[in-house]
Amino acid sequence: MAVLIKNVSYLIRDAERVEEGKDVLLKENKIWKVGKFTPDWVKGLSSYEVIDASGKMVIPGFINAHTHLYQSLLKGCQDDLPLVDWCNQVTFPLCQLIAQEERKKDDTLGYYWGLLSSLEMLKNGVTTCLNLDMSLNSVFQAWVDSGIRGIGAITTADMWIPDVLKEEPIQLREKVLSFIEKWHLYGGEDSRIYVMFGPSAPFVCSEDLLLWTREEASKRKMHIHTHIAETLYEVELLEKENGLRPLKYLHSLGFLGPDLSAAHCIHLDDEELELIKRYQVIPVHNPKSNMKLASGIAPVTKMLSMGIKVGLGTDGCASNDNLDMFEEMRFASLLQKVATANSAAFSARDAFRMATEGGALACGIDAGTIDEGKLADLVIIDLEQPHLYPLHDPINTLVYCGKSSDVETVIINGQVVVRNKEVISLPEREVLEEARRVIATKITY
Amino acid sequence: MAVLIKNVSYLIRDAERVEEGKDVLLKENKIWKVGKFTPDWVKGLSSYEVIDASGKMVIPGFINAHTHLYQSLLKGCQDDLPLVDWCNQVTFPLCQLIAQEERKKDDTLGYYWGLLSSLEMLKNGVTTCLNLDMSLNSVFQAWVDSGIRGIGAITTADMWIPDVLKEEPIQLREKVLSFIEKWHLYGGEDSRIYVMFGPSAPFVCSEDLLLWTREEASKRKMHIHTHIAETLYEVELLEKENGLRPLKYLHSLGFLGPDLSAAHCIHLDDEELELIKRYQVIPVHNPKSNMKLASGIAPVTKMLSMGIKVGLGTDGCASNDNLDMFEEMRFASLLQKVATANSAAFSARDAFRMATEGGALACGIDAGTIDEGKLADLVIIDLEQPHLYPLHDPINTLVYCGKSSDVETVIINGQVVVRNKEVISLPEREVLEEARRVIATKITY
Repeated sequence: MAVLIKNVSYLIRDAERVEEGKDVLLKENKIWKVGKFTPDWVKGLSSYEVIDASGKMVIPGFINAHTHLYQSLLKGCQDDLPLVDWCNQVTFPLCQLIAQEERKKDDTLGYYWGLLSSLEMLKNGVTTCLNLDMSLNSVFQAWVDSGIRGIGAITTADMWIPDVLKEEPIQLREKVLSFIEKWHLYGGEDSRIYVMFGPSAPFVCSEDLLLWTREEASKRKMHIHTHIAETLYEVELLEKENGLRPLKYLHSLGFLGPDLSAAHCIHLDDEELELIKRYQVIPVHNPKSNMKLASGIAPVTKMLSMGIKVGLGTDGCASNDNLDMFEEMRFASLLQKVATANSAAFSARDAFRMATEGGALACGIDAGTIDEGKLADLVIIDLEQPHLYPLHDPINTLVYCGKSSDVETVIINGQVVVRNKEVISLPEREVLEEARRVIATKITY
Repeated sequence: MAVLIKNVSYLIRDAERVEEGKDVLLKENKIWKVGKFTPDWVKGLSSYEVIDASGKMVIPGFINAHTHLYQSLLKGCQDDLPLVDWCNQVTFPLCQLIAQEERKKDDTLGYYWGLLSSLEMLKNGVTTCLNLDMSLNSVFQAWVDSGIRGIGAITTADMWIPDVLKEEPIQLREKVLSFIEKWHLYGGEDSRIYVMFGPSAPFVCSEDLLLWTREEASKRKMHIHTHIAETLYEVELLEKENGLRPLKYLHSLGFLGPDLSAAHCIHLDDEELELIKRYQVIPVHNPKSNMKLASGIAPVTKMLSMGIKVGLGTDGCASNDNLDMFEEMRFASLLQKVATANSAAFSARDAFRMATEGGALACGIDAGTIDEGKLADLVIIDLEQPHLYPLHDPINTLVYCGKSSDVETVIINGQVVVRNKEVISLPEREVLEEARRVIATKITY
């Protein structure tokens, strides 16, 4: 059904355009009209829902442009380990369990981490997630059922990982192609389910795997998502093995392009930043995860000053430990201010742009601003809260004061998914109960 | 009325003690019993309220050990200015307005910022705030009415500030003493309203004012709260004028002691850290404000390793821009990890301890842990939320995943102030409406 959002007190069309007292019509899965309502907007519509947004703020939905949703099972699990130990002690045991389950053709666990993390993201105003994971079929099914826009970048790696997770090259490639076959644009052209190639990181992928990925992605006009330069360890390893730093190594393979987004991008030199700019690669910033794992501080202020477009992501819940883009925006902004010793660096608008437009570029979707023709992914914010009052500047208030509990309504692909702060696409209580039961049965280590 | 909290799933008594399945009895304004309930607990009690906390977490209330509540009127007001410009353009104009209003004997504005910020803090699980402000009578009245434990450190300064804010020395001192007379332990021995001395910072207070403050505080056995070493500017200014860095300068005046708490404490050398330790001064860490104003990163990990006790505070809403201790704990932890390049530094337990026990020391109150005889300031956390599930370690989950919207019940001085996530001591909707009206009338610049 079409949705008419009327009398929007603050319509945040993008980081630079805030309009007052406007209306928005959504039809099918697109934003159809933005402006002052006139009856011809709804001419020929047999029915449409009206949502009154007076006293409220309407924003493009947040795009969580880098996460690992299986880690939602690991939140708060282990504290205070360096990255390599953390992989060995925290994430790999769960990955191994998942791999064992998969061999038994049981992916129930994935369905529940998919639902659990979707519930969390929907309540936080996240309309799209880009999930770099083993991406079980059940996770895609959870996105279909939850109403979120879900992008599964199918993780591939053939070096450095534990033996139990290794697969034969042919098998690995066939798996990726079968996910594309089954889930990419699932349900048709207006789909909210997509697949991407997900080579985990240049230091864990062989040259063969990277070359195959680039060739297949270009041939199919599909996107690639990866990790780049999260740790100094990885940079030094690649330099030792190939004589090149990560970006230069990928460049030497012809891997760079605007269809490539890369999480972290912390340890880059000036030439690598120039490569990112020249090839329009989209870095995805993960400030909280980078802080928690002490990986470092990405040169995001410099990237923006160079005109590089950047996305924002929470990373997985084992290193964050939530999927909250309000908080991620605040961490992004405040971290850059202190890191550059300049309180005028990195404004609320910069953070908001990364969480919306930048994320859309990373995900390769036509979303992230409120404009006619864009995907109908919007969030309505309840402003009647003591922590949001008084409101001097709508974007500053949203970025510096807003909380996920202010998310009142979420619309994805033209469908209302959260209403009055309750997820209506899923029975929240039952999902939590069932998730508790399934997780308790499966995770015994 | 006495309150019996039964069947607590996770009782966080302090940062090291998590107990399961316990009960807690509150009587008058104290924690009376902690353990397994037996009928003799309630013998002689004519009536008591029972709260079932099965499936929930109970924690000591958060102590916001440094804030400026008038800045709640300025949240999101101006972004991205260095500290001195920010004072001149953002905070001083409001301070001047308040001073003008005060001369007209009108402190209505203070009542509403007091209520507005109390509403925000109560909903965030803050049971005590230490507010360094001009501290109008109306702000104290707002605390009396809201149910929060409020500490007003009466700001004094006689240098560097704009002329319009300057007062004659005698007048300034009499004002402080009159606040003490009127509000300290307001309502009797079990009061939740206190006054402190609040010399703003060593570089804006004359030696005379500092010496008078120390003498009066010692004589009356009252606490002192101040700012120390927030910016390099201030350190250099004091060094130039007195030849001594801030802590050494205060030491030379005999100013240091366990009754002194100091916000920020960023730019300290090793000798100054030793002075803090020797005199048991309590630094209050303000990570978000320090990041937003690009003031620097306080050496908190080093302080903790030296055995210094540290409190945690949000600072004012003009430099934060909220009063949310969950977020402040996360910023504290993640900032220390990345700043020390050590993900094992500064655990969730360190952050929690600062937000509770450390704050109690800064405030000079017998609170911050759940032990018999301590003040009955507790918070009950609703755990049935997708972002809190699954729970592997209660304190990690609280610190890394918890949100203010998880605060279900708040008890202060033995009284239930928040129930089912609603503030019951104040009519929230009416306060917001009236605040909107009063602020719109008064703030016209």
